[in-house]
Amino acid sequence: MEAVDTDIVDSVAAAVNERRLWQRHMEMAKIGETPKGGVDRQALTREDVRARVLLADWAAELGFECTMDEIGNMFVRRQGTERDAAPVMTGSHIDTQPSGGRFDGIYGVLAGLETLQAVEDTGLATRRPLEAVVWTNEEGSRFMPGCMGSSVFVEPGLLEQMLCSEDLDGVTVTKALTELRAAMPAVRARPLGGEVAAFIEAHIEQGPELEATNNTIGVVTGIQGTRRFLIEVHGEDAHAGTTPRKRRKDALSAAVAMVAGLERLMYDEHDTVRFTVGRFVVSPNAPSVVPGYVAFTIDFRQPEQDVLTRLGDQVETVCRENAKACAVKVIETSRTEPTKFEGLVPDTIDSVVKRLDLPHMHIFSGASHDAQNLFKVCPTGMIFVPCEKGISHNEAENATPGDLAAGTRVLAEVMVAIANR
Amino acid sequence: MEAVDTDIVDSVAAAVNERRLWQRHMEMAKIGETPKGGVDRQALTREDVRARVLLADWAAELGFECTMDEIGNMFVRRQGTERDAAPVMTGSHIDTQPSGGRFDGIYGVLAGLETLQAVEDTGLATRRPLEAVVWTNEEGSRFMPGCMGSSVFVEPGLLEQMLCSEDLDGVTVTKALTELRAAMPAVRARPLGGEVAAFIEAHIEQGPELEATNNTIGVVTGIQGTRRFLIEVHGEDAHAGTTPRKRRKDALSAAVAMVAGLERLMYDEHDTVRFTVGRFVVSPNAPSVVPGYVAFTIDFRQPEQDVLTRLGDQVETVCRENAKACAVKVIETSRTEPTKFEGLVPDTIDSVVKRLDLPHMHIFSGASHDAQNLFKVCPTGMIFVPCEKGISHNEAENATPGDLAAGTRVLAEVMVAIANR
Repeated sequence: MEAVDTDIVDSVAAAVNERRLWQRHMEMAKIGETPKGGVDRQALTREDVRARVLLADWAAELGFECTMDEIGNMFVRRQGTERDAAPVMTGSHIDTQPSGGRFDGIYGVLAGLETLQAVEDTGLATRRPLEAVVWTNEEGSRFMPGCMGSSVFVEPGLLEQMLCSEDLDGVTVTKALTELRAAMPAVRARPLGGEVAAFIEAHIEQGPELEATNNTIGVVTGIQGTRRFLIEVHGEDAHAGTTPRKRRKDALSAAVAMVAGLERLMYDEHDTVRFTVGRFVVSPNAPSVVPGYVAFTIDFRQPEQDVLTRLGDQVETVCRENAKACAVKVIETSRTEPTKFEGLVPDTIDSVVKRLDLPHMHIFSGASHDAQNLFKVCPTGMIFVPCEKGISHNEAENATPGDLAAGTRVLAEVMVAIANR
Repeated sequence: MEAVDTDIVDSVAAAVNERRLWQRHMEMAKIGETPKGGVDRQALTREDVRARVLLADWAAELGFECTMDEIGNMFVRRQGTERDAAPVMTGSHIDTQPSGGRFDGIYGVLAGLETLQAVEDTGLATRRPLEAVVWTNEEGSRFMPGCMGSSVFVEPGLLEQMLCSEDLDGVTVTKALTELRAAMPAVRARPLGGEVAAFIEAHIEQGPELEATNNTIGVVTGIQGTRRFLIEVHGEDAHAGTTPRKRRKDALSAAVAMVAGLERLMYDEHDTVRFTVGRFVVSPNAPSVVPGYVAFTIDFRQPEQDVLTRLGDQVETVCRENAKACAVKVIETSRTEPTKFEGLVPDTIDSVVKRLDLPHMHIFSGASHDAQNLFKVCPTGMIFVPCEKGISHNEAENATPGDLAAGTRVLAEVMVAIANR
């Protein structure tokens, strides 16, 4: 156990204000709200900018300095007694999917602000500064790729490439950032990157496990790795009424056999493999034509590197074995190694949840998060709270004020403990 | 043999102009031409309208009257000596599949026009009028179902229902017909239906048999029966990274299992069953979302009524057995019994091809044709000519000027013979 002694900071948890935290969530949810009660606040849109201005206003009222780096990441800082010490950071993202919910991302930002305010309210000094961060464009729905801000923070060499990313209307990240900066002239620029003592991200689970097991806190032990593929099946358009089976090059029939073969490959008794064919496009897609072309995607995630390697490396073979009379092209479009959170941060979270006597469990994250990037440069961990029925990336996404506050209490105590270590 | 005496009309075959017929095909192929040399001229699109306007212009130049009924079927008429006698009709369709070829459908229309012109050139009078018809929406790729115009012609009670059919953008047949009529104000309206003395449709084979046996003419003895289904699979959208297999209601996974199960059901050693899943639509069709909905079509054809009944009746059972955690709805969208052409028309075709000494064979049609509908109300038959490698519903579809002209010579002699009977 690397956990630091956390007994000294009980007062911070008590200072976390459930009602204030919830009200800020509801106020943020108005910015980009959808008719079905969700949120559409995609990266660097007018809505994202408005939400960031609101956050900067709240920070200013509380006397915290707010700065922004070259990719638009925003940092709200409560100073430490050692001004130049590397800060303890928390944070997440403000942007959402087009049909997103009220808690994904924004919770981690508001829990960070609440932590800074709670510490301020107790009058407690910390050795290291505390920072609540907004990472730019985590979702990747308007600009590709996602986790853009955090990836540039840990690898500044990516900046130029990311600034050139365009949305579907041809607007670049550079252009969108110019509008963001114009909206908040009082926010001082800061250099990209910098040393970080530790990073702790609070987030809704986006899965059903905490709710199903009646746990309030998930101590995140890692984020599964992902391999994504695009499979292109080339056959031959033919007449459905006249072409005998033996003369067909039916791309749909081959693709169906491939998916069935991949499902057999990916089947595991313990149900830890996440295998999804989410996009499946057929051409010419006409009822009376044998399809000459199919393209489909594979999203394959797993916590264990060896499983990710072993199964992922068989994808092409299984596709070829089931190609029937068609030609097949297998393209691996992206690959992320599994992340294991160990040591300082998860151990300290463990220690705090036990002392606060909160029902908790160790949990692995199925979804990707900015913490994956910070993990590369500093001790990192995550705190999950339940979301209703595990529904996320959906306008119906929901969470309770009590659970959000409980996660924030854990976050606040962990940050202070590590900052004073 | 019901064939009429055909010796009197030798001059008509000689008047068929191979070069003119081919040039009209090439001119029509420009309307909706695709980069790969095919044609995309789906029903009642701007391209279909342009092609019909061109046909009406040609008819007008030749002095033939052109009329249109309430479902957009167009009739080019050469008057008979008995003006009110039921006409002898020929024709096919102008619309194509999205990746269609230069001959499917349009050949039957242009062979009809060439027949009228050849008869006109000889100065021959016929007792009955001759009509070359364009049946609306044979392919059924934009508006469902196919063979729309001919089915309404023989069963006018279907009109209201067909007018309400919508394409994927929500455009109705009514709306599309309004645009068609606006483009050809000189074409007079005519009532739906009417008595027909006989119907003869010329068409490319869309299969490999004529080419493989070195025959120029196929005397069509029937058309296999068809059962078409729409399968709707209802699951639940879910996060690809966080949702365990056991909690998924993956509509794509279920649909894939259904298609595989149906392929097993439909497998026959002799390869006479034609089973095609041509359209397969996934929602939300995003790489990282477990699909909550899939709809796919089944096109099942067979010459034997009992096989059509026995296998078709098991489609719903097989879909239900493979639905996994999803709900499934099986809708039979159309059903056509196998057609047997006998008597007047095929006997007269037989007689003509023998006299013209053309290599020919009796052949069964795998594809559906408008002739199936006309068969319900008048003596009907079809003339097939070879297409390269049997490829159709494909941009590579091809045929030779000589074969197209040969089929037209047979058509012209058959029409005149029957019209003067």
